[in-house]
Amino acid sequence: MSTTQQAVRPTDPTGGRPVVPSTGVLRPLGLSEIALTGGFWLCRQRTNAQATLAHCQMWMERLGWVANFDRVADATTRPDRPGLVFSDSEIYKLLEAMAWEFGRTGDLRVDAAFRALSERVVRAQDADGYLNTSFGHGGQAPRYCDLAGGHELYCAGHLLQAAVARLRTYGVDELVEAARRSADHVCDTFGAGGIASVCGHPEIELGLVELGRALGEQRYVDQALLFVDRRGHGTLGDHAFGREYYQDDVPVRDADAWRGHAVRALYLSAAAVDVAVERKDQVLLEAIARQWANTVARRTYLTGGMGSHHQDEGFGRDWVLPADRAYCETCAGVGSVMVSWRLFLATGDVRYADLIERTFFNIVATSVREDGRAFFYANTLHQRVPGPAVTDDEVSPRASSSMRAPWFDVSCCPTNLARTMATWHTYAAAIDRTGLSICQYAAATVRTTLQDGREIGLDIQTNYPRSGLVTVHITRPTPGPWTLRLRIPEWAEGAVVQDGGQRTLAHPGFFQLERAFAVGDQITLDLPMAPRFTNPSPHVDAVRGCVAVERGPEVLCLESVDLPAGVSLDEIRIDTSIPPSEHHGRVLVAGRRVEVREDAWPYSSGDEWSADSQQVVDLPLTPYHAWADRGPSRMRVWLPTV
Amino acid sequence: MSTTQQAVRPTDPTGGRPVVPSTGVLRPLGLSEIALTGGFWLCRQRTNAQATLAHCQMWMERLGWVANFDRVADATTRPDRPGLVFSDSEIYKLLEAMAWEFGRTGDLRVDAAFRALSERVVRAQDADGYLNTSFGHGGQAPRYCDLAGGHELYCAGHLLQAAVARLRTYGVDELVEAARRSADHVCDTFGAGGIASVCGHPEIELGLVELGRALGEQRYVDQALLFVDRRGHGTLGDHAFGREYYQDDVPVRDADAWRGHAVRALYLSAAAVDVAVERKDQVLLEAIARQWANTVARRTYLTGGMGSHHQDEGFGRDWVLPADRAYCETCAGVGSVMVSWRLFLATGDVRYADLIERTFFNIVATSVREDGRAFFYANTLHQRVPGPAVTDDEVSPRASSSMRAPWFDVSCCPTNLARTMATWHTYAAAIDRTGLSICQYAAATVRTTLQDGREIGLDIQTNYPRSGLVTVHITRPTPGPWTLRLRIPEWAEGAVVQDGGQRTLAHPGFFQLERAFAVGDQITLDLPMAPRFTNPSPHVDAVRGCVAVERGPEVLCLESVDLPAGVSLDEIRIDTSIPPSEHHGRVLVAGRRVEVREDAWPYSSGDEWSADSQQVVDLPLTPYHAWADRGPSRMRVWLPTV
Repeated sequence: MSTTQQAVRPTDPTGGRPVVPSTGVLRPLGLSEIALTGGFWLCRQRTNAQATLAHCQMWMERLGWVANFDRVADATTRPDRPGLVFSDSEIYKLLEAMAWEFGRTGDLRVDAAFRALSERVVRAQDADGYLNTSFGHGGQAPRYCDLAGGHELYCAGHLLQAAVARLRTYGVDELVEAARRSADHVCDTFGAGGIASVCGHPEIELGLVELGRALGEQRYVDQALLFVDRRGHGTLGDHAFGREYYQDDVPVRDADAWRGHAVRALYLSAAAVDVAVERKDQVLLEAIARQWANTVARRTYLTGGMGSHHQDEGFGRDWVLPADRAYCETCAGVGSVMVSWRLFLATGDVRYADLIERTFFNIVATSVREDGRAFFYANTLHQRVPGPAVTDDEVSPRASSSMRAPWFDVSCCPTNLARTMATWHTYAAAIDRTGLSICQYAAATVRTTLQDGREIGLDIQTNYPRSGLVTVHITRPTPGPWTLRLRIPEWAEGAVVQDGGQRTLAHPGFFQLERAFAVGDQITLDLPMAPRFTNPSPHVDAVRGCVAVERGPEVLCLESVDLPAGVSLDEIRIDTSIPPSEHHGRVLVAGRRVEVREDAWPYSSGDEWSADSQQVVDLPLTPYHAWADRGPSRMRVWLPTV
Repeated sequence: MSTTQQAVRPTDPTGGRPVVPSTGVLRPLGLSEIALTGGFWLCRQRTNAQATLAHCQMWMERLGWVANFDRVADATTRPDRPGLVFSDSEIYKLLEAMAWEFGRTGDLRVDAAFRALSERVVRAQDADGYLNTSFGHGGQAPRYCDLAGGHELYCAGHLLQAAVARLRTYGVDELVEAARRSADHVCDTFGAGGIASVCGHPEIELGLVELGRALGEQRYVDQALLFVDRRGHGTLGDHAFGREYYQDDVPVRDADAWRGHAVRALYLSAAAVDVAVERKDQVLLEAIARQWANTVARRTYLTGGMGSHHQDEGFGRDWVLPADRAYCETCAGVGSVMVSWRLFLATGDVRYADLIERTFFNIVATSVREDGRAFFYANTLHQRVPGPAVTDDEVSPRASSSMRAPWFDVSCCPTNLARTMATWHTYAAAIDRTGLSICQYAAATVRTTLQDGREIGLDIQTNYPRSGLVTVHITRPTPGPWTLRLRIPEWAEGAVVQDGGQRTLAHPGFFQLERAFAVGDQITLDLPMAPRFTNPSPHVDAVRGCVAVERGPEVLCLESVDLPAGVSLDEIRIDTSIPPSEHHGRVLVAGRRVEVREDAWPYSSGDEWSADSQQVVDLPLTPYHAWADRGPSRMRVWLPTV
């Protein structure tokens, strides 16, 4: 154990980054190149560090998911193993989150927690590199006997991602060595001449590519490509929800939109971008870009949420986007960010960064409770009844209540959020040869090196999204001109950039300042934060005759706790002739109450169903990410107008 | 075998009836008291007899579900038993359908098929009365080890219902004796002092009550009540979809609406009405009436379809009624008819007969293909894409396509439809002490005895629902006055009854003629069959801004095959200022085509989404029950107006 842990030499001198493509338009910043200094996301990063990491570990100890590794190591596995077959992956995602968090702050307590946990994991590895607590040991089913449902390669993929985080924030240690052995075992077992199949849940592909990049092992990247190309040929056999459930219906290159289980589709697509970039495979890259575009245009919620089916946690057909049965799994939000980020780095297309912002504010930020110790597994856009009470001491089913829950039977979102929060700032900006693109707005300092070798430094001050004002100060002298790009979000028509004395109207897209900058130079961006009405396409049948309200990147909602006593959420009709306003920090819309008749049969050829009160009242809205913060409630994002 | 089969003495001299309550406002007619003479339902009864019965038997032989009984009898059971754990019940439902069909026509070929099949079933019964091919024999799990999921009592309940059908159309035979042994075994095993639990799928309750009624065995009725009262106390333990999935969350007497798995909820409720009626338990009866009313008011589709969730085949919360993800399982339609019929007999309330008609025309008639050899398992109200092709030679998943399928992995609907079709005419009328109520309109002859002993006879002539004209001729002399009641459906505002020279406006409800009738007297009912627009309550969010069209009892729909080339179903907007019309037997509505812009993001704060063509075109509609008869199509019941 001790020898490798002495070698404290990060192999990636630019600091930790979850994704480091070897080609592409943009290069991501690492954990040491950008740091948040205040605001919405720093607050959440701190909560993640101070509460969520320990919370996840506590639950996994309590439920025996960590002890599963001890039992394998001690050869005391039992038939009644705690946890579902994929519970190992939660420990790996927690390790990944700890590694990034250590990289972000250097907090030695986090490092100690990582070491203690990873030691127990590594002990459970078989001599040939296989590492799994559900299969292949005393009293268990044999290895790889159930590729469709066993999640063995899925778990291995998360082990590899944890190792990448450790490698890029610390260096080679026992976990990294274990991951290398695991990756070698996977390549040996599933490479040419091996088992010619794939895992029912994509993920190994992501781990293999990134570990291949981090260790310079082309073999791992090649194996990932093999997995990507094998899928879609029916090797997994039928599934009750159709082969599209695990994207084994159509080859990745041929599909036109995401379908089936949303997290599976998104992890697979993120990996496909990775291998496309490594192999300069433009056809594969364009296939994912096409699937992204079609899915965003027809199968995505206003919140950025993906997946409308509860049954299979999956995408619906085009335009199947019910508000009340929206699934919008938190992990699909994380997966969507993963795909969009990779496409953004590959292409520089601002649309990907737009969707990332939408998903961060309205899915990722929505899932976690303020204290970091409870989560929404799914993110509905319409809560009809508050749903059952949830205590902080019980495991919950996945999608049942208006209350966030501390842990789930399938508990993939807490650790997925933890690793995402710990790296949030690495999505905030990216560089190319001669410039920096600011993608997400937050108070932050940046100090990095352009690809042409010149150093740049800047300080970003903002209270975004509370305010739309963003000020960039240049903090380092950089010889010659370089390009500062500011993302003007798709919703920010009317944004203004002030550079010195010059004010310029900036349209959605990247606003580009190309000049020499001096220390102390100040650039100001003023994003229009007035709340606005948003209308759905008539194709979205489920919300016909409704309107939503957005403010900056935040989707807003109306909660029952804000209604006058005796008024029901279903009785509100919004008056869109009166624009939404803002008073004392809250957005208000004008609405009337209608009296809806209730009959024995809810369909009628006769009279009007409702009588309009005409009396207009102001209705205070809440950012969707803060809904249910004041206790169980009914909630609507889409508000009827008729 | 031979001794009991010689005893060809029906124990029920009034002829076969599926339900014979010992108390209640109305008494149902038996198979020998009413016969269809033409029209919509006779055509379907004949198809059922000529095609569906043999079709079901062929598939169950082919898949080995019938042979499962032989293997138990021959002690050759194998671990790889074909079929799901509840496949025995399909054989029983087929036997029940055969028995009713034999009772309807006396066709000896049907009787022979019944005998051959029931002989194989009876051979598989254990000495103590237990009869099941999935549990309790060589290489199988032990009896009753999985009450929540094993369906053993569910299967037994269907055996009992098959025996009731045989008993009431033939007499005591070996199957009836086997059912008696099975019922005794169930009472011995689950009675006081026995296993204090219930089956995960209600059904045994229905079988026990009816066999108890048919054989005069109070013990069976008592056991059914015990099962009804045991449910709702959590004895089955947790379920992934919540305990409401099998109605084990709340006692039957306390619940306010149906919830959880729709078929389970409806079978349980039908049985609860049965035991309430037998025990004169008004509280229990009122509980089911309340659940019916709340569910019909808030959780039922325009088609009468029940169950909006795919995930758990279950009811959604109030107002969760998406058109495109409507589940509306065919068997839930059958179950709904079962509950409504029992409530109708108990109370005489016309609303129950109204819902039965709606469900017959729009769920039961929709599911079966014209040739009786393919079925919809689920009945969506909006088919967005035609879905995968289905051949007549393969087993299909449950809810995937716009094509009816010959058989399913879970194939409960074909045999459920078969037994319902064979008894359709017994739902058409009911008698009380001094009168006859005509509940469903079809060409038919009725000859029965009022509860006061007087005989009545009449001949009903109609081409309903093609025409709304119904003529009743009195065919038998009956001394003294009696009451003829004609159901005026809830939609039939403006109906006219002509009796002799007198024309009377008849309002929805039962129109009552109380007088002495002479042979040759003619009463005419004229129901208004003009097609009409139907508006949804604003509570039904999913179809806001839409309208449906109905004609008589039929819900209509628009199919893509009827649109001009190049026009998509999603581009149609109905002009409700022009009433629907009828030309050459088809209903037409006026609609415009709108051009809907399609953007990269389907939500916008800016411009209008659509441009209206203004040009109005006539759109031909199709009865919903006939949709997809012309091949795969896209289809909408709810048509946007805005």
